[in-house]
Amino acid sequence: MKNTALFERELPNADLERLFNPRAITIIGVGKSPYGGGFFLRSLVEAGFPHPLYPVNPRLAGGEVFGHKVYGAVAEIPGDPPVDLAIVAVPAATTPKLMGELGEAGIPFAHVFSSGYSEVGKVGLEQELLEAARRAGVRVVGPNCMGVYNPRARIFFADGLTSESGNVGYVSQSGGLAARLALNGPTRGYYFSKAVSVGNQVDLDVLDFLRYFADDPETGIIAAYLENLKRDGHLLVPLMKQTTLEKPVVIWKSGKSQRGQKAVVSHTGGLAGNYELWKAMAKQTGVTLVDSFDELTEMVQAFSILPVPETRGTAIITAGGGLSVEGTDLCEANGLTVPALSTRAQERLAAIFSDVNTNLQNPLDLGAMGLMADTFAKAMEVLADEPQISNIIFVKDPERFPVYAQNFGIENFTEVVVKSIGDAKPPGKVVVGASTILREVEDAVVARFRFQEALLEKGIPSFNTIESAIKCIRRLWEYGEYRRKHGGEKK
Amino acid sequence: MKNTALFERELPNADLERLFNPRAITIIGVGKSPYGGGFFLRSLVEAGFPHPLYPVNPRLAGGEVFGHKVYGAVAEIPGDPPVDLAIVAVPAATTPKLMGELGEAGIPFAHVFSSGYSEVGKVGLEQELLEAARRAGVRVVGPNCMGVYNPRARIFFADGLTSESGNVGYVSQSGGLAARLALNGPTRGYYFSKAVSVGNQVDLDVLDFLRYFADDPETGIIAAYLENLKRDGHLLVPLMKQTTLEKPVVIWKSGKSQRGQKAVVSHTGGLAGNYELWKAMAKQTGVTLVDSFDELTEMVQAFSILPVPETRGTAIITAGGGLSVEGTDLCEANGLTVPALSTRAQERLAAIFSDVNTNLQNPLDLGAMGLMADTFAKAMEVLADEPQISNIIFVKDPERFPVYAQNFGIENFTEVVVKSIGDAKPPGKVVVGASTILREVEDAVVARFRFQEALLEKGIPSFNTIESAIKCIRRLWEYGEYRRKHGGEKK
Repeated sequence: MKNTALFERELPNADLERLFNPRAITIIGVGKSPYGGGFFLRSLVEAGFPHPLYPVNPRLAGGEVFGHKVYGAVAEIPGDPPVDLAIVAVPAATTPKLMGELGEAGIPFAHVFSSGYSEVGKVGLEQELLEAARRAGVRVVGPNCMGVYNPRARIFFADGLTSESGNVGYVSQSGGLAARLALNGPTRGYYFSKAVSVGNQVDLDVLDFLRYFADDPETGIIAAYLENLKRDGHLLVPLMKQTTLEKPVVIWKSGKSQRGQKAVVSHTGGLAGNYELWKAMAKQTGVTLVDSFDELTEMVQAFSILPVPETRGTAIITAGGGLSVEGTDLCEANGLTVPALSTRAQERLAAIFSDVNTNLQNPLDLGAMGLMADTFAKAMEVLADEPQISNIIFVKDPERFPVYAQNFGIENFTEVVVKSIGDAKPPGKVVVGASTILREVEDAVVARFRFQEALLEKGIPSFNTIESAIKCIRRLWEYGEYRRKHGGEKK
Repeated sequence: MKNTALFERELPNADLERLFNPRAITIIGVGKSPYGGGFFLRSLVEAGFPHPLYPVNPRLAGGEVFGHKVYGAVAEIPGDPPVDLAIVAVPAATTPKLMGELGEAGIPFAHVFSSGYSEVGKVGLEQELLEAARRAGVRVVGPNCMGVYNPRARIFFADGLTSESGNVGYVSQSGGLAARLALNGPTRGYYFSKAVSVGNQVDLDVLDFLRYFADDPETGIIAAYLENLKRDGHLLVPLMKQTTLEKPVVIWKSGKSQRGQKAVVSHTGGLAGNYELWKAMAKQTGVTLVDSFDELTEMVQAFSILPVPETRGTAIITAGGGLSVEGTDLCEANGLTVPALSTRAQERLAAIFSDVNTNLQNPLDLGAMGLMADTFAKAMEVLADEPQISNIIFVKDPERFPVYAQNFGIENFTEVVVKSIGDAKPPGKVVVGASTILREVEDAVVARFRFQEALLEKGIPSFNTIESAIKCIRRLWEYGEYRRKHGGEKK
C-alpha cells in the first residue's frame, strides 16, 4: 500500500528505516551510571548492537564508558559509517541548541529521552526544541520517551527484552507501557518487528509510525497505545481503512475521561480527544479498540496465534453446569451465538458420553466425565465437523489435576490433557481455554500457570476468566466481519 | 426483622434451623464407594459431625460403611435423638415412595441429591416427588443438589471445606458453584455461616433461604447464585428491601441470554426470567447484582473485609504514568471520582517526593520513587487526612521486588512493603491493591500471589487488574448510597 499522499509534509517511510536500522548511534549525555543516558549505552552493548556507538559527554571526554570511548562533543564523532541516530539524555533546556549540532554533523534522527517539556507545563521549551530541530533538518522522536526497540537490529529500550523478532509493530505514547507489552511478548507467544515509544510527539508522532508499520513488510499486526493525537485525527481514518484490509490494528485509547485527560496532560503533555469519536473511527475502519492493557496484550496475542473466525458460532465445553450457563450468557451478551449441534454430532457424543450428569447439547457439559484426561479432546473431535461452530471455548480447573492424576492413575496428567487437546484442535477454528481455579492458593495458581503455559506451546491461548476468552473471540470475529464486508484479503 | 407474612405457606425460620443443625442424619442409598451417597457419609465422618449417622441400604444391611452400621430401611433407624435430615441418594424413580417412609419415621427434611428430574425433562416425576413429600409432611431441598454446608455443625457438601465459620450465608442453585465459593472463602478471607445448594427447588427454594439468612443472626452477608425463581418474583422485592438495610446481599443472576436460559433448563430444570427485571429489582432494593463467578467472589470478599465508602472520591497511587491514566479513565467510567488533593496534602507530598518523573496530583504517579519499599505507605499517610478521598487504589508490580530488594539492600522486600502499607492504611477508608505483572512467567505469577496473600493478611484485598479493583469499589459505594438514602444503619 502507498498512502504517502496523506503525509506530504512527512518523511518517506524509506527514510524512517534509518531510525529503526541506524548504521551508527551516538548517545549524548552518558554518565558512568547505568541509568539515564548510561542506560541506553549499556542496553545497546548488552543487546549486541553490531555497529559503532559513540557516547558523548564533555566531562568524561577521552575516558571510556561500558567499553566505549567517550567524545567531548558531537562535532568530534567519526562520520563513517554515518551516524543515523542520536539518543539525547541531556537537561531539557540544552536540547534546542544540541539540535543545531546534530544538524551540522548530518545526523537525521534524534530520540530525545530527556523530560521536562509540555508534560510539566514547559510548552515554550518544547516548541523551541521543535523549531531548532526543523531548522537543523533533524527529525525528533519524543521528547520524554524511550525511543526504539528493534530486536533484529539489536536496539532495546528496556531491560529484559528478547532479541527474537516477530511480526508485531507497536507504537506507544507511554514508555512504561511500551516496555510492558514488549516484555510480555515471549511469555504470551508473540514477538515484535519493531516498537517505538513516542512520548510528547513534538515531531514524529503516532500517525507517522502507524503509516510506517502499515507499509513495513516485517510487520503483520499493528498495536498502539495512544493518549491523544497531535495532528488532525481525520488523517487516521483513511490510513486505518487502508491498513486493516491487510493487517489487524489494535488500539488502546486511554485518557477517555475528564480526569483521565488531565492525567494525560501531565503524562505526555497532550490533549485527549472525545472517546465517542474513537469508537466511531474503530467501527468505520475495522480497528480493534480495547479498553485496558490486559486487553491490548490479549488481542495482540490472539491476532498472533489464532485464526480469524468464519462465523460467530461458538461451542462451550465444561465439566459442570454452572459455568456453561455463565459462558452462554456471556457469549450472547458479546454478540456471539451458541448454536445447536447437528443430530449426527449429538449421536457421536452420545456414543462417547453417558447421559448421567451431562448435557450433550451446546453448551456441552461433560459432567464428571469431563474430569478425565481425554474427554475434552474427544468432544472437540466431534465439534471439528460442525461447520456452524467456528470457535471453541473449553473450561478446565487445572488445580485438581494432581487429584485426577491419582484417581485415574496418570502420572503426567497435565501433559496428557494438553497433548490430547492440542492434537484434537480443529485447524481453522478458534480454540481457547478458560482456566478457572477454585482456591486462591499458591499450588492452584502455579498449576494454572503451568497448564496455560503448556497450552500456549500448542498454540492455544487461555484466560483466567470465561469473559476474557469470549471478549477475545468477539473482537476477532468483528475484525473478520469487517474484512469480509470491505473486501480485504488475509495476507 | 420479621417478614413471615410474605411466606404464609412457608416454614417458620425456627423450623429451618433443624435442617442446618440436625440432631441426627440418615443417608439413604449409601454404597461402599466414597462417591454418590457414600460421599455424604464419608464427608460427615471426616468433618466430625458430632451426632448420630444412620446409613441405609437394604443390600448392605447389618454391615458397616465408614465405621457406621448400615440399616436395611428407614423404619429401622433409631429415633432418639430425632433424625432431622435424610440425605437421599437413590434412583430418582424410587424417591416419591421414599418420601412416605420418611414421613412415617417423622423425619422433617429430605435433601434429595439424586438427579434425573425436570433437568432431563422428567417434569412428571419431579411433581410426583413434591406431592409425595407434601403428603408425608416432608420438606425437600433439591432434587439434583448438594444440600447443606454448615461449618459450625460439621456438615460439609464438598471435599476440602473448612470447619472455620464466618458470617456469609450462601444459597446456590448450582452444586458446583456452591462448592466453588465455599472453597475459595479461606483463601480470600471470608467464611460461611451456612450455605445451601438448592438444585431444582421443587419445594424449598431460593426465597426460603434468602428469608432464612435475612433473619439468621449468624449471617451478616448474603450471597446467592440464581438461575431462576420458582415462585412469583414479586416476593423478592419486599424481602430484599428489608434485608439490604441490615445486610448486604450479593446476587449473581445467571441464565440471562436465550441460549443461557436453555442451558439453565437442562442444568436445574428452571425457567430464567428477564434480566432487565433483575437489574430494576437490584436498583430498587439495594441488592448488589454481579455478572460472573469472579465478581461474586470479589464482592463477598469486599463486603467481608472492607468498609462501605462514605464518598465516591478515589485516589490512585502508581509508579508510572500510563497506569494512572488507565485507572482514572476506569474510575470515571464506573461513576467514581478522582478528586484533587488539598494544598496542604500537595505540600506534604512535595516535601517527600521529588518533582522529577512524578505527578503529585491525584492520580498520584510516584515515578521511580514509587519503586522504593515505603513510598506508597508515605503517600497513603498523606491521603489519610483528605476527607474527599474515601477509597485508595494502589498499583504495584511485585515481580520486580527481587530486583528492588537487591537495589535497595532490603532482603525481605515484600514483607517490608506489605507492612508499611498495612501500617499506613487509613481506618475507615477502602484500601485495595491492583497487582499487575509484566511477564506471564512462573516467578512473576508466584511473586504476585505471595504479595497478594501477604496483603490480604493485613486486610487488604488485591486484584489482578485495576478494572476489577474499581468495579469492586463502585459496588461498595452503590450499596452505601442505597443505605444512606433509605435510612439503613450498618449493623
